[in-house]
Amino acid sequence: MFEPRYVSDLLQKAVDAFSRLPGIGPKSALRLALHLLRQEEEEAENLAQSITDLRRKVVYCSECRMISDAPLCPVCSNPERDRGIICVVENVRDVMSIEHTGRYKGLYHVLGGIISPIDGIGPSDLAVEPLMERLGRGGVREVVLALSTTMEGETTCFYLYKKIASYKLTVTTIARGVGFGDQLEYTDELTLGRSIENRQPFKPE
Amino acid sequence: MFEPRYVSDLLQKAVDAFSRLPGIGPKSALRLALHLLRQEEEEAENLAQSITDLRRKVVYCSECRMISDAPLCPVCSNPERDRGIICVVENVRDVMSIEHTGRYKGLYHVLGGIISPIDGIGPSDLAVEPLMERLGRGGVREVVLALSTTMEGETTCFYLYKKIASYKLTVTTIARGVGFGDQLEYTDELTLGRSIENRQPFKPE
Repeated sequence: MFEPRYVSDLLQKAVDAFSRLPGIGPKSALRLALHLLRQEEEEAENLAQSITDLRRKVVYCSECRMISDAPLCPVCSNPERDRGIICVVENVRDVMSIEHTGRYKGLYHVLGGIISPIDGIGPSDLAVEPLMERLGRGGVREVVLALSTTMEGETTCFYLYKKIASYKLTVTTIARGVGFGDQLEYTDELTLGRSIENRQPFKPE
Repeated sequence: MFEPRYVSDLLQKAVDAFSRLPGIGPKSALRLALHLLRQEEEEAENLAQSITDLRRKVVYCSECRMISDAPLCPVCSNPERDRGIICVVENVRDVMSIEHTGRYKGLYHVLGGIISPIDGIGPSDLAVEPLMERLGRGGVREVVLALSTTMEGETTCFYLYKKIASYKLTVTTIARGVGFGDQLEYTDELTLGRSIENRQPFKPE
């Protein structure tokens, strides 16, 4: 698109750094860099500082592996959460999504991925052993497997189910079915078929 | 979407800072922040440093107002450029675009905007006086007005043309016509009409 090295090495460096971020191509990166040049110096300093702080100071919760500003995350250190339930999720965003619903009061366990032979990701690449260690300490009565309903998600659910079986606790998965606000005619056959099979008593909220 | 304050203040700060960039919404900002958390610390430091350097060290060329790492930009300080021609453009990106074509060997002058009464931008908000000052020093034989072919661009061209008239130099504008690779049937009437009126001798390249 252009020869920025001719214009400014510093601009080129910033464009290169922005371009390495996901979803940001060279054109967007240039736009971001030129935008920052037009802002107050404070604005750019603030962005730079928050990036540095984020990477240097954010840690992973020693219990649930969620990102956190302290060794124990706000969920694990909250005495009001139900310590008898652990919800197993693939990643940090899933915790955020479930937290945002405000419908879950137990603890979490972030696997940090999902079993995917095609990507070479096996159980040993995930935080499975730390989960077993948490269950081994006792006090947990239910494990909720809240994984994606993809092939990999189902495989991981099955693997964990077998691993957990020895602990004699309730293993549940999140309900599958037609989403709220979905129109039946646009719902895929598999989802619709299973959701008719697994029909539930009508409960007006 | 989520309650990140509950998760990490540092994450929230980074998401807020990314969200203030143009074209980046809260979801993309979260994705960028989580991406940086997964990278090596060096990657994040590098991004932060290049943002700081960009804003602190990049200056505007004292002659042409192009961004530059030195008081005089690489174009203005290049003895091989033709100092008799000044190409007037709206912004820094236009210089990059023209430089990239490799077809122009003169100097530039960045106006820093375009006359737009609707946005309250008048000649005094643009680098018009510095242009007059450059022309007043003599040695310039041609001014190329390379502005957008919009109403604002045409207004600015006309304004500059009148201002420059007293200097007795050649004033040109970039050629308008059907773009290379454009199909005639999809070219707008105005462009096509003018480009037939302004037909030129055929020159095989």
